[in-house]
Amino acid sequence: MEKAEIGLIGLGTMGSNLALNIAEKGHRIAVFNRTVSRVDEFKANAGELADRIVPCHSLAELAEAIRPPRPVIIMVLAGKPVDEQIAALRGELEANDILIDAGNANFHDTVRRFRELEGSGLTFIGMGVSGGEEGARHGPSIMVGGTEESWKRVEGVLTAISAKFKGEPCAAWLGPDGAGHFVKTIHNGIEYADMQMIAEIYGILRDGLSMGAKEIAPVFGTWNKGRLNSYLIEITAKVLAADDAKTGKPVVDVILDRAGQKGTGKWSVIEAQQLGIPATAIEAAVAARVLSSLKDERQAAEKAYGALAVEKIDAPRDALLKDLELALFAGKIAAYAQGFAVMAGASNEFGWKLPMPTIAKIWRAGCIIRSEMLDTMAEAFSSGGAEKNLLMAPAFVTLMKGAHPSLRRIVARAAEAGLPVPALSSALGYFDAYRQGRGTSNLIQGQRDFFGAHGFERIGEQGAFHGPWNSAD
Amino acid sequence: MEKAEIGLIGLGTMGSNLALNIAEKGHRIAVFNRTVSRVDEFKANAGELADRIVPCHSLAELAEAIRPPRPVIIMVLAGKPVDEQIAALRGELEANDILIDAGNANFHDTVRRFRELEGSGLTFIGMGVSGGEEGARHGPSIMVGGTEESWKRVEGVLTAISAKFKGEPCAAWLGPDGAGHFVKTIHNGIEYADMQMIAEIYGILRDGLSMGAKEIAPVFGTWNKGRLNSYLIEITAKVLAADDAKTGKPVVDVILDRAGQKGTGKWSVIEAQQLGIPATAIEAAVAARVLSSLKDERQAAEKAYGALAVEKIDAPRDALLKDLELALFAGKIAAYAQGFAVMAGASNEFGWKLPMPTIAKIWRAGCIIRSEMLDTMAEAFSSGGAEKNLLMAPAFVTLMKGAHPSLRRIVARAAEAGLPVPALSSALGYFDAYRQGRGTSNLIQGQRDFFGAHGFERIGEQGAFHGPWNSAD
Repeated sequence: MEKAEIGLIGLGTMGSNLALNIAEKGHRIAVFNRTVSRVDEFKANAGELADRIVPCHSLAELAEAIRPPRPVIIMVLAGKPVDEQIAALRGELEANDILIDAGNANFHDTVRRFRELEGSGLTFIGMGVSGGEEGARHGPSIMVGGTEESWKRVEGVLTAISAKFKGEPCAAWLGPDGAGHFVKTIHNGIEYADMQMIAEIYGILRDGLSMGAKEIAPVFGTWNKGRLNSYLIEITAKVLAADDAKTGKPVVDVILDRAGQKGTGKWSVIEAQQLGIPATAIEAAVAARVLSSLKDERQAAEKAYGALAVEKIDAPRDALLKDLELALFAGKIAAYAQGFAVMAGASNEFGWKLPMPTIAKIWRAGCIIRSEMLDTMAEAFSSGGAEKNLLMAPAFVTLMKGAHPSLRRIVARAAEAGLPVPALSSALGYFDAYRQGRGTSNLIQGQRDFFGAHGFERIGEQGAFHGPWNSAD
Repeated sequence: MEKAEIGLIGLGTMGSNLALNIAEKGHRIAVFNRTVSRVDEFKANAGELADRIVPCHSLAELAEAIRPPRPVIIMVLAGKPVDEQIAALRGELEANDILIDAGNANFHDTVRRFRELEGSGLTFIGMGVSGGEEGARHGPSIMVGGTEESWKRVEGVLTAISAKFKGEPCAAWLGPDGAGHFVKTIHNGIEYADMQMIAEIYGILRDGLSMGAKEIAPVFGTWNKGRLNSYLIEITAKVLAADDAKTGKPVVDVILDRAGQKGTGKWSVIEAQQLGIPATAIEAAVAARVLSSLKDERQAAEKAYGALAVEKIDAPRDALLKDLELALFAGKIAAYAQGFAVMAGASNEFGWKLPMPTIAKIWRAGCIIRSEMLDTMAEAFSSGGAEKNLLMAPAFVTLMKGAHPSLRRIVARAAEAGLPVPALSSALGYFDAYRQGRGTSNLIQGQRDFFGAHGFERIGEQGAFHGPWNSAD
């Protein structure tokens, strides 16, 4: 029998969809699942794709079915199940075979697994996959970390199943060991910031302008045709437009305002802190989700402080909508600048040489944060000027010059009206601090020297100096 | 010879000052230093305190000199030197002796050291000491973690040397193993936020109102007599008033605006994230220090974006100064609320039962963030209502009601003027999100269900629900 090109373990929703995607692109795929009955069931339901699916009832059968060196995608719950699966596979595989963790792993685990397999002859790929269930089935964005040699073995399959942006595949090798999962983590961190900023703008429309969901939906729909064109804006319009079957109200009005999170936002922020790179917009978004989960406390606080007497935002509607659009645009740029800066920091720290233009390119389609703006970013990173910070790429200097006045007006109006805009204001604070040649931490250095004798630098002079505090005291 | 009450290893500035403080309070103290010559030198320079100082030239001599069970303060560089010192001491000490790490340890290290000594008969105390060199010499704030039994042995000495607030000692046992060092870490995180907010207000005065250092100094001096009364405001006035001997200019104007940090701010934020507790004002402060260190990038950005055409803040001077004072006050309250919430989260997570009223009390004097407001906080935590959040204590509801309108006006004016106020705006964002009974994460839940089928809760109904997205798509 013809050997399969690749194997896959774990036929949950994501695994099944990836397997069908692979089969559909013309590749034979060997599949295995812990609950073995699922394997034949899967093939039985695969329709015309069934003849490219090789059902395996043991790991030995799986190994036998794949063309060496054997790539095996593991799509099981992140954490211990992955380690167990790797342990079970080690006995069945041979030199140069490739284990591919396609789950949402913490990149530290990926690095550890890669190292644990070194010397065994096997190798490991940590593969970030974004795009949800739909993406897995019809074209996700795929971020790969591992050896270049192992990438060459799977490149054909992975680029075939990935999303395409104007024909270019959204799958790439980004660097060694944990590079792929790290980039996926930051992708998700940016996604948190993006979603939070959209929610903040929605809050201004809802509470500051007293607009209903049905009025707000077309605003996002219109924005989706312009500079904000993106999957998240598109689905925001759809979510706002949808009706609840039970009550007839807009669905968004019957959803409880308590957001969940699965950890990648938090990981982004912790890594940013470990690397010493500011990621305040992402942090604000993670914090906002936590605060949203404290529904009882918030309701108690509203009682204690009195329901918010929102001063309705009073400005000509069209001008305000234009400001909101540009504010969101500027906020997004600053949040992405932070995310890319965190990746650059990790690249330095871990010696990964992450290819920023490629990362922007493979995010242009397939993934949750796909957008028109990412094409502009890909160009900016390709043509130079964004090495230190995306905010310094000439194209983004121009864009930000046009948009930041709106961001500051919106942050100001929201602050006055009592509407929380933590991510937008963090983005503005970042931009304003970044563009300020002479900041205010000279005072902080003075204070630190005063109480801790930490010393300070003088303008235009090398060395550590102390102030005349003892005499001043 | 009369035995010493306690021992101390490491006669650097902090260690020397602590030792002198102990001797001055009437306790015999045995001292040792790796460079042994320093020991006799120290005694020789101790003046009238010399007869309470027992110079030891080996660890064996040190052990011999102290009354059992022997407490030994280790005041060496944080990290490996502490572990080396512990290893060296283990051979010299006996059952029930107490090793006390008085450095700025990461509490995870403290927990580890505590566990490593368990079973050896020795015990370990992690002791946070705040107040800088002056505090160490004349009265620091002392935060102790370890067994209650070991605390009893050292309580007399530590309360004697600590700062006093209206006669009450600022030293306390806060809980097991890492509790003391954790509280010290959060103390420093709050200190970062406090200093950053002061710097932001200074920036508004300097760049928004075009005031010179000499004009700004008395503003802080006046504030120090009111609700903002605190060590940091006091020294801000002094720093701003001081002249540079070399140029005759105000010192603050010759200090480079590039702030250093030693890691406790970053630790605070990482722990907050690990615990899932928002600490956005502290995060903003840590980020601001990082951005300040990117002086070259900031100057390049200023060139690219054009020097900030600050619209001078145009408002009656007296009203504006009052708003600035209240904005700083409100921002501080929110930042402290975050810090205390992080400690409450850690207390739950690690089963520490941290005594919040006691923590607020021992921060009222001796430490860098000492302030009048901490007395109000101590009362608030003692009298109830602040269990979930300081913002919910009746006294602070009243204070915040009076102050938050100023905070929002200042954040708005600064946003419009292009003056970075990341910590103040994070504090406002936190407050506004916390007091909002109905937030905007219903939209986020809708988006998450749309692209990831994560499900959402409905208002007033248990369970996980999905939206009608497929039909809407």
